[in-house]
Amino acid sequence: MATLGLIEYKDATPEVRAVYDDIMLTRKTDWINNFWKAIAHDPAMLKHTWDGMKQIMGPGSLDPLTKELIYVAISVSNQCGYCIASHTASARKKGMSDEMFKELMAVVGMANATNRVVAGYQVEIDEEFKNK
Amino acid sequence: MATLGLIEYKDATPEVRAVYDDIMLTRKTDWINNFWKAIAHDPAMLKHTWDGMKQIMGPGSLDPLTKELIYVAISVSNQCGYCIASHTASARKKGMSDEMFKELMAVVGMANATNRVVAGYQVEIDEEFKNK
Amino acid sequence: MATLGLIEYKDATPEVRAVYDDIMLTRKTDWINNFWKAIAHDPAMLKHTWDGMKQIMGPGSLDPLTKELIYVAISVSNQCGYCIASHTASARKKGMSDEMFKELMAVVGMANATNRVVAGYQVEIDEEFKNK
Amino acid sequence: MATLGLIEYKDATPEVRAVYDDIMLTRKTDWINNFWKAIAHDPAMLKHTWDGMKQIMGPGSLDPLTKELIYVAISVSNQCGYCIASHTASARKKGMSDEMFKELMAVVGMANATNRVVAGYQVEIDEEFKNK
Amino acid sequence: MATLGLIEYKDATPEVRAVYDDIMLTRKTDWINNFWKAIAHDPAMLKHTWDGMKQIMGPGSLDPLTKELIYVAISVSNQCGYCIASHTASARKKGMSDEMFKELMAVVGMANATNRVVAGYQVEIDEEFKNK
Amino acid sequence: MATLGLIEYKDATPEVRAVYDDIMLTRKTDWINNFWKAIAHDPAMLKHTWDGMKQIMGPGSLDPLTKELIYVAISVSNQCGYCIASHTASARKKGMSDEMFKELMAVVGMANATNRVVAGYQVEIDEEFKNK
Repeated sequence: MATLGLIEYKDATPEVRAVYDDIMLTRKTDWINNFWKAIAHDPAMLKHTWDGMKQIMGPGSLDPLTKELIYVAISVSNQCGYCIASHTASARKKGMSDEMFKELMAVVGMANATNRVVAGYQVEIDEEFKNK
Repeated sequence: MATLGLIEYKDATPEVRAVYDDIMLTRKTDWINNFWKAIAHDPAMLKHTWDGMKQIMGPGSLDPLTKELIYVAISVSNQCGYCIASHTASARKKGMSDEMFKELMAVVGMANATNRVVAGYQVEIDEEFKNK
Repeated sequence: MATLGLIEYKDATPEVRAVYDDIMLTRKTDWINNFWKAIAHDPAMLKHTWDGMKQIMGPGSLDPLTKELIYVAISVSNQCGYCIASHTASARKKGMSDEMFKELMAVVGMANATNRVVAGYQVEIDEEFKNK
Repeated sequence: MATLGLIEYKDATPEVRAVYDDIMLTRKTDWINNFWKAIAHDPAMLKHTWDGMKQIMGPGSLDPLTKELIYVAISVSNQCGYCIASHTASARKKGMSDEMFKELMAVVGMANATNRVVAGYQVEIDEEFKNK
Repeated sequence: MATLGLIEYKDATPEVRAVYDDIMLTRKTDWINNFWKAIAHDPAMLKHTWDGMKQIMGPGSLDPLTKELIYVAISVSNQCGYCIASHTASARKKGMSDEMFKELMAVVGMANATNRVVAGYQVEIDEEFKNK
Repeated sequence: MATLGLIEYKDATPEVRAVYDDIMLTRKTDWINNFWKAIAHDPAMLKHTWDGMKQIMGPGSLDPLTKELIYVAISVSNQCGYCIASHTASARKKGMSDEMFKELMAVVGMANATNRVVAGYQVEIDEEFKNK
């Protein structure tokens, strides 16, 4: 169980409900996942995190699906079980196909391998890559 | 200096040169970065890694730029200095604008933060995210 | 189940029991948590780890609660489920309030975010921070 | 050099200068460290990060020094060179003595060791640590 | 459940079955563990990963048991539950005794501790260790 | 420079010199590398770490070279530059050939890749791997 428990909508303060409402409206859904209910014990953090998430993950120079794929890739690299489950579901909802998922995993594996091989061989950064 | 040193083109065996040639041809460039020169001491690994990289990072359901952005995101999460420098340069070459880079960094920061907050609050995976 | 199983007090050698006794005495408790029972298969490691833990986590320039909060922060950053659960419980026992926990999580999130953003932007260390 | 370069005060927009001014005022200092100058290319992120940092790292149930020690501990665990240098300097400024630093490092070493040993022995979470 | 589900032998294409057959033949076993069944949705990755695994983990200058111990050590450092379980089982099958396992865990703990302590104390690399 | 500076032999207390002497005697060398000089500011930690290192890294069911290879593998996975440099040098001194190094790096790359791929595909642990 979550350390401080989960705050359900019916038990939430108006301040927390306002964030819950905006999450559901923005995501076009009628439920709130556990992450938000867990951090709702800290209303300032709930609001700060949601405001950041809403702004950062929305459309920009990068489209929302690309951002979600990046989120999954990082969560996988960090071995965060909850994040892998939740952001894989989000990515699917935003249009990630099975093919995209498989290619994503291939990149994740390759990057995590070469990140260590390059460190292990103690490779110096090429001049061409500096100051650029 | 790299643990086993760097193998320059002029000193390379035909087997290694073949990989170097393919790297330069594929990337439309006339030089080889240190990573490949460092692992060229292990020609089987050089070939295996390049073959994988070429296939995985090429066009598919995800375009090469998206894959490169994912590579940067993972390298940053893993604190791999060489990889950050080299893949940031690659991403630029493939079309990453300053705006894209900034949005990428914002996602990287957010994901690395929430990956830990969710673990710290010991949040359980929602039933809605399972078996999906 | 733990790889080598758990060694209960009744089945323990006098050498292991001596450590178990000291753990219970030091912590003012009447039970031993699974971590110690799991590594008790290696009595030298059990003793070395407990001796280190007892010395390091005790009062000093930093008080025991501060040290426990640091332990939780690292465990969360490393995604160690067992450690998060056990050290959160320890921190509570040493006086961590809900408010402290929430502030701790906010720092953990912030630090994990900026640790990557600074690497991603390839920021060089300021001269003012060197040799100090 | 930082990926997008560093934005000095004299070259900054009023929006960025306002954040720089608040950093210097809050920290009672007359200079800005590279991290902020690097992310100033993204004024929204600069402001969002500084606002969060200011709020999270200020006094609360945990005092600013304790929070700074936690920040150092995480930065060390994550191998972030810049963050170790900058937050060690900050911690010193907030009162960290040599003794505190040494005790902090001892906790960091111990936590990073046991985080892995417990995972390696595949230890299950004690019932006593659940739902709490 | 695995993201894309598991592909059982009876439901597999000839291409996938060929890999499954080679895994069972090489490992002298009559079953396939979930990892392979999960990535079999991407037959190219299945084959590429198995081919690499077979070549890399086989006898060479390092014997298969030593390689398996290294695999366990990395999996433990990375907090990968599945990998710890599967590679601990593999190591046992290749001859890892309880004594070896315990010594392995002691090295894993020590290395993860000192990796951070050295970073925290900001220790510079000795000249004697460079260019070598 | 190291956070607290380096303590040279000539400036060391008898307590610290005793550890330095034992390091040089055990390693059959006439110098002390920076790691020990940096943590010598904390004589208790210096002694505790060296005693542990000496015991853990010495001969046992696993030979010293195997242990050193494991140390390198973990240091590489954790991106610890100092540790990679120092333990690669140690491994060489204990007999690591170029071939062994190359095979080690191949295992490190493979393990770091599959550790993430298995997490990304959300693969459940096989019953055959449990309770064992």
